[in-house]
Amino acid sequence: MSTIVSVDTRDIRFPTSLELDGSDAMNPDPDYSAAYLVIRTDAADGLAGHAFVFTIGRGNDVEVAALDALRAHLVGRDVEELLGDMGAAWRLLAHDSQLRWLGPEKGVMHMAIGAALNALWDLRAKRAGLPLWQLLAGLSPEELVSLVDFRYISDAVTPAEALELFRAAEPGRAERTAKLLELGYPAYTTTPGWLGYSDEKLERLCREAVADGYPQIKLKVGASLDDDVRRLGIARAAVGAGFPIAIDANQRWGVDEAIEWVRALADFDLAWIEEPTSPDDILGHAAIARGVAPVRVATGEHVQNRIVFKQLLQAGGMAVMQIDAARVGGVNENLANLLLAAKYGVPVCPHAGGVGLCEAVQHLSMFDYVALSGTMDGRMIEFVDHLHEHFVTPAVVERGRYLTPTAPGAGTEMHEASIERYTWRGAHVAEVPA
Amino acid sequence: MSTIVSVDTRDIRFPTSLELDGSDAMNPDPDYSAAYLVIRTDAADGLAGHAFVFTIGRGNDVEVAALDALRAHLVGRDVEELLGDMGAAWRLLAHDSQLRWLGPEKGVMHMAIGAALNALWDLRAKRAGLPLWQLLAGLSPEELVSLVDFRYISDAVTPAEALELFRAAEPGRAERTAKLLELGYPAYTTTPGWLGYSDEKLERLCREAVADGYPQIKLKVGASLDDDVRRLGIARAAVGAGFPIAIDANQRWGVDEAIEWVRALADFDLAWIEEPTSPDDILGHAAIARGVAPVRVATGEHVQNRIVFKQLLQAGGMAVMQIDAARVGGVNENLANLLLAAKYGVPVCPHAGGVGLCEAVQHLSMFDYVALSGTMDGRMIEFVDHLHEHFVTPAVVERGRYLTPTAPGAGTEMHEASIERYTWRGAHVAEVPA
Repeated sequence: MSTIVSVDTRDIRFPTSLELDGSDAMNPDPDYSAAYLVIRTDAADGLAGHAFVFTIGRGNDVEVAALDALRAHLVGRDVEELLGDMGAAWRLLAHDSQLRWLGPEKGVMHMAIGAALNALWDLRAKRAGLPLWQLLAGLSPEELVSLVDFRYISDAVTPAEALELFRAAEPGRAERTAKLLELGYPAYTTTPGWLGYSDEKLERLCREAVADGYPQIKLKVGASLDDDVRRLGIARAAVGAGFPIAIDANQRWGVDEAIEWVRALADFDLAWIEEPTSPDDILGHAAIARGVAPVRVATGEHVQNRIVFKQLLQAGGMAVMQIDAARVGGVNENLANLLLAAKYGVPVCPHAGGVGLCEAVQHLSMFDYVALSGTMDGRMIEFVDHLHEHFVTPAVVERGRYLTPTAPGAGTEMHEASIERYTWRGAHVAEVPA
Repeated sequence: MSTIVSVDTRDIRFPTSLELDGSDAMNPDPDYSAAYLVIRTDAADGLAGHAFVFTIGRGNDVEVAALDALRAHLVGRDVEELLGDMGAAWRLLAHDSQLRWLGPEKGVMHMAIGAALNALWDLRAKRAGLPLWQLLAGLSPEELVSLVDFRYISDAVTPAEALELFRAAEPGRAERTAKLLELGYPAYTTTPGWLGYSDEKLERLCREAVADGYPQIKLKVGASLDDDVRRLGIARAAVGAGFPIAIDANQRWGVDEAIEWVRALADFDLAWIEEPTSPDDILGHAAIARGVAPVRVATGEHVQNRIVFKQLLQAGGMAVMQIDAARVGGVNENLANLLLAAKYGVPVCPHAGGVGLCEAVQHLSMFDYVALSGTMDGRMIEFVDHLHEHFVTPAVVERGRYLTPTAPGAGTEMHEASIERYTWRGAHVAEVPA
């Protein structure tokens, strides 16, 4: 028996705005940041659970305050009891009525709860000696169902239906695990498409993406229609006809504007339009989906919880679900999201990039393949080649595929030296060698 | 010319859980709290802007951290410039791309932005020597439109339509101002209906509410159907046939359960069912509205922003809009909400109670009456007789009506002694005389 003895938090910020990496129509100068926590126990194994909320700079301190607010719920708890019933762990944090008032189930507090749960999952996976995807894919259908909060989604998927979905996938688990370990999981790249890049850099990176084996690229759009036409022309010429190009507006438009703008770009043969408008506008997404068909609408990186995902599916507003590992209520709520996608037959192509999002979210897609959807068809995980060097078990993409991680844990642990160097002390770290 | 010199914040918590005041099906033991800020300037008038986010206890510190994160945006700014263009003030705070990532436009960060804007409005009203409702109701239609962010709502109401709505109400402003000052504004009371009260207390408070002149009462429901039937029976007998009784489930149910439960209570002749399910479930509200008609669905106290209100109206999921002064992006976003209600012809019956919510929200309803909807028909503001003594200009209800405030400001300033006494220092204030 062991006990949680500390929850350490850190405000970590990388000076990405200095390079214009990650710039888009709504986020011109992000500083990729992590509100980071470490859950430590008094067990002899010395293992700790690490996780984070991803932010883009200012306000990372607010997210750290939200992590700090969870300390009293965790310190002193029996570790085996907590990790042994992660559905109860969700309820402990997400159903605290006073904290819930701050959302409910959205924004700063909900993301912090998600990170705390993810840190517990990291610890559980490390204790099991398994990568998170494999730990999850080895759980019984009954335990998987027990992890999900069906409140507010049982009109779309019931616990009984969820059990059926997990049971239906059970027979092929071993075979798919072997295939996953052999082949990895498809990736697509956003590296060429940031708005801050020159035309020359865009063209070069598009060619490199194809040469590197990626099955799809994505371009940021929405700041200027003329620029979008020019940049899509360059990209299409660089990658050739038929090669999938997705576009991403990062919530720039209203509903009518989104329809007009995407129609004006439709000749470039678009794989999807991502975040055409506010992530809160379910009916707007549905109107846009009707207005821009056959271009598919993708969204999710800012979708606050399972309740909004449910409605996007019910309303026909989302043809591609883009879960994010650090936006919703952790692994538990993403299991709900994966179930909803499975129920509605929509592919999940996770959002990643930022800091550590690739490392974290790959486990969810891989679990989904082995134990739920059973397929990689039409699925791929975003990949951006930034900041991976700060993680103990960095995501690795080769020939357009994520290599399947085999190290124990959830992939969310940062190097101690990176934590130290990039801890925010009121100004960007001096760009001197460490 | 003057400059903002400080933004002081405080974590203020009242020990309401000790009395079970405010208990409902989702919030059994709230400690009514305020994340409070004061914006001070170097002007000779010595005036300061006061406002707060209302929370129910734990996590109030997180909300204070969010207020602190706004300090750098405010300190050093030219006061006249800021107050003279409050649409720009909204954009300064709500469009900060890095802070926006923490929502976007929802939860802890968005509520903090709302409080900062409300503090600026308090300061502007004090400088003008007017109560906020009267300051707002004296602005030109053009300036009112300039305060509203139409991003993501222009598919429902355009700036041109908003201008028309304000212009249409302009001729009667003087007459309605006089009437408002004479008659006040209708209130309804939730005091009888908390779940923690005994049947005897419920009955007594119901009779008192009628005797006090309230036109409607509201009961909390949703913990137990048997209890709800018994309590509604007691209430109906106490107030008599035909007297409006609303019920409030505080998000307790899923969609199907809500329909069943409300149908089982429909014989009690319900004025509305409030918050039947998650405030995020727009399609769910619409399904419930269809399922429980002719009982009306009311919601809003947890609706995160104008985008969700827009959709609740578009989907037919909300027959009564319950704006809250401290949930959304301040006065500016509530102007958007009032415009949406006016466009769709839905009455606004604000949520109040808590700490200072009555004081704050009355100004919005009164402004709406004078300068937008032009009517009090079917409108009333919630009133709970708690904690008003802590405010410099407390809301006053007599014979079932809010007396129209005439003191300068937004009503959101607390007594210095209350701030000092109830500042959270890790435990509830000892219940000794101050």
